[in-house]
Amino acid sequence: MRAKLHLAVDPSARARGISSFNLVACGLILIAVLVAVLETEQTLVDQYPSFFMIADGLFFIIFAIEYCLRLYVAPLNPRFSGRFGRIRYIFSFWAVIDLIALLPFLLAGAGTSAYYLRLARLFRVLGIARLGRFTHAWRVLGGAFYSRRYELLISALVALLLLLVSSTFLYLIEADGQPDAFGSVPRALWWSVATLTTVGYGDVTPHTPIGQFFAGITAVAGIGLVAMPTGILAAAFSDAFQKQRGDK
Amino acid sequence: MRAKLHLAVDPSARARGISSFNLVACGLILIAVLVAVLETEQTLVDQYPSFFMIADGLFFIIFAIEYCLRLYVAPLNPRFSGRFGRIRYIFSFWAVIDLIALLPFLLAGAGTSAYYLRLARLFRVLGIARLGRFTHAWRVLGGAFYSRRYELLISALVALLLLLVSSTFLYLIEADGQPDAFGSVPRALWWSVATLTTVGYGDVTPHTPIGQFFAGITAVAGIGLVAMPTGILAAAFSDAFQKQRGDK
Amino acid sequence: MRAKLHLAVDPSARARGISSFNLVACGLILIAVLVAVLETEQTLVDQYPSFFMIADGLFFIIFAIEYCLRLYVAPLNPRFSGRFGRIRYIFSFWAVIDLIALLPFLLAGAGTSAYYLRLARLFRVLGIARLGRFTHAWRVLGGAFYSRRYELLISALVALLLLLVSSTFLYLIEADGQPDAFGSVPRALWWSVATLTTVGYGDVTPHTPIGQFFAGITAVAGIGLVAMPTGILAAAFSDAFQKQRGDK
Amino acid sequence: MRAKLHLAVDPSARARGISSFNLVACGLILIAVLVAVLETEQTLVDQYPSFFMIADGLFFIIFAIEYCLRLYVAPLNPRFSGRFGRIRYIFSFWAVIDLIALLPFLLAGAGTSAYYLRLARLFRVLGIARLGRFTHAWRVLGGAFYSRRYELLISALVALLLLLVSSTFLYLIEADGQPDAFGSVPRALWWSVATLTTVGYGDVTPHTPIGQFFAGITAVAGIGLVAMPTGILAAAFSDAFQKQRGDK
Repeated sequence: MRAKLHLAVDPSARARGISSFNLVACGLILIAVLVAVLETEQTLVDQYPSFFMIADGLFFIIFAIEYCLRLYVAPLNPRFSGRFGRIRYIFSFWAVIDLIALLPFLLAGAGTSAYYLRLARLFRVLGIARLGRFTHAWRVLGGAFYSRRYELLISALVALLLLLVSSTFLYLIEADGQPDAFGSVPRALWWSVATLTTVGYGDVTPHTPIGQFFAGITAVAGIGLVAMPTGILAAAFSDAFQKQRGDK
Repeated sequence: MRAKLHLAVDPSARARGISSFNLVACGLILIAVLVAVLETEQTLVDQYPSFFMIADGLFFIIFAIEYCLRLYVAPLNPRFSGRFGRIRYIFSFWAVIDLIALLPFLLAGAGTSAYYLRLARLFRVLGIARLGRFTHAWRVLGGAFYSRRYELLISALVALLLLLVSSTFLYLIEADGQPDAFGSVPRALWWSVATLTTVGYGDVTPHTPIGQFFAGITAVAGIGLVAMPTGILAAAFSDAFQKQRGDK
Repeated sequence: MRAKLHLAVDPSARARGISSFNLVACGLILIAVLVAVLETEQTLVDQYPSFFMIADGLFFIIFAIEYCLRLYVAPLNPRFSGRFGRIRYIFSFWAVIDLIALLPFLLAGAGTSAYYLRLARLFRVLGIARLGRFTHAWRVLGGAFYSRRYELLISALVALLLLLVSSTFLYLIEADGQPDAFGSVPRALWWSVATLTTVGYGDVTPHTPIGQFFAGITAVAGIGLVAMPTGILAAAFSDAFQKQRGDK
Repeated sequence: MRAKLHLAVDPSARARGISSFNLVACGLILIAVLVAVLETEQTLVDQYPSFFMIADGLFFIIFAIEYCLRLYVAPLNPRFSGRFGRIRYIFSFWAVIDLIALLPFLLAGAGTSAYYLRLARLFRVLGIARLGRFTHAWRVLGGAFYSRRYELLISALVALLLLLVSSTFLYLIEADGQPDAFGSVPRALWWSVATLTTVGYGDVTPHTPIGQFFAGITAVAGIGLVAMPTGILAAAFSDAFQKQRGDK
């Protein structure tokens, strides 16, 4: 019976696919995160105080049971078998995250301010990443990133250089007209990062023709800034997928 | 004669290419959608009331005839041959969409409010997607998406995590200065989603230097958010196109 | 001597590379376009009237000589050899564009309004595209586009559907609060196209929480809208480059 | 001992990896750049004047020592061995950049205005690019760019053409209503470049329906403008990575 439970609870127990137990757990974590996010909106908490109290309690009970179940079947996983296997499991990465996600409710009972609790509750989201443990996907993506770390680093350096060059130019050109927005390189960086990432808030824009000329060049360079890492990742993923096919 | 009509009317009857009948049908659907969209603009309807009445009637007649033609030749398609073939056709996906697209005009005669009619009329656009039935293109794209569903799911989870982390940071930093825009995580999410997708409306921006620092990091992370699915899709499509070439 | 001139003037005469004659011609065209663009700025024309008059005259003489040279060596190109070769050259695509680019100056002398002249002058830019004639690059890019025309068409249809669905949602939600911006589907389309293309002007944004929720989903869908054609093109180019390597 | 130092100091001495000496040097350069950037913010300099004075002096001493070390071990590099090897090293690209990065402090002592010093200090960032010398990454990326220079040039020309066409259209349509923003093609270019690069500041937007229609088309064309170079780079990188694998 514990073996059956292990197959349902431990995502790494199955060669492929996800058990319905873990699918439900993922869904519950997503809902719990949504509730935690909504709880920061004071007008909602004031309107439905009992809903959030009940939801917090319910999620604590559910995830506490889930934690106990995972701890119960842990020794069936070869990594946590043998003596001290359960203790090693408790200090494994995902178990610690599971525990951290349970803390806010306990700490609230201990009277800590709700402010940091909200932040801690966010760690629950990381639990969702467990979903990935059961596939090659994480390894494929991570391997692609790692194999092209130098190329990605170079494109990050080029981006940094572009950021500094463009913010320096705009600082030199626009500082006199708009001291608040371009009065120093750190201030001009706010405009520069918004432009190079093609976000373009538009709260700060150059007003002189020569400033707009350099801003236009920066915007075009921003396309390159997006294209380079995208191209590197696309090629790295393509490489990784081909290697994967070759292995089969 | 019905066989000839079948070849002209049924997009799946031809191995390659699109018949001029279906090309005209697609063009008419696009025009009908355009008219339906323009009809929501009250100033236009008030200015040219007869134009929209005539257009609606005309399109109903045209698409009713088209529906009857498709129903008439349906049994020549192996999928809808035999007894009850036509009835099976009526309940097939595209035939139902064709019928839904005809409903607004009939319901208008039945006195239903024009409000929902406009919404229903939008379904006509889906009819255009029939265009794709006759090529491998849908299958190639769909297959590429499906084969990399885990990688795409992971990048969606990373995006969700980035959304929550960045909105939480901005909420902690900017809540005091701009309670309307950053007073809770759900409110900060509006800024966060606009930044991470590199849309950048600029209606809400951080005002403190520390907030702008984290916003800059968020904007740079936004590039990664765009680059990752693009790279995965590029690699998946590349894989699919190569497999397709290998099959030939 | 004509053979030497042909080698220098006709971009298709060389197997690889670009002659210094054509490099200078391309540079001059770019400068001429720049001058034509600046000429639309009335304050500049008022400040330096003689500069623009001299520049226009000079560029006319230069490009007229270039046109005559090209016409003179045209018969050495196998496509335009034999009888009527020169006449066939005059009516070839690039020669017609060269001639159109010369018209504004002549028409100005004929007293036509300067308004359309400015527009016609823009055709000169197309002349730059001649640069591409001498490489495989155009054919490789064009072939890649053509080979994946169905996939690109499907992503265009998906984009159109997203545009209509998102603008309809925002119209239903925000029409009451902001009739000017979201009072009809055509009006909401302006917001929708700015969001889905991740441009995000921010002149029009949803104000209600539910509207912002759907706008956020639209912005995320916008990433897909950018990622899909980029991925298709990346895969198509990858395919084309590989085929090109295989041919060698 | 000098051989050991050479292995630690010269990035090209090692076949793979980066020595801890160079890792520390890179970290220090990044911190020095950060300090130089912060120094342009007058409010910070006024608040902590001694911090910036000490930091500038310290960085000068550190990088002067680094420069001497590199000069000391230079002859062990085959490129700079033999007679005049050190002198040839002094005039090599990276050594000149190292020297330029040291100049601001010396010039400040010579009484030059701080204005240009700040600009010169930016050159230090280029020193970080030395990081790349020790890997194939630069060569792979550069080779990919070079091998597809014609395709990238074509997409730049298409971008230029789109810029000019869209700004001309908006100038024709919106010039009457907004002479400040669209009164000439150069003015309309500011809007055009912001839209086509999908930056979208939103400080200038078309107000007429027909202007918004063309702006929407421009925004959609902007996706193509981003997708084309991204696709070309992705395919070129994919090609380069495959060639690299084939060489092993």
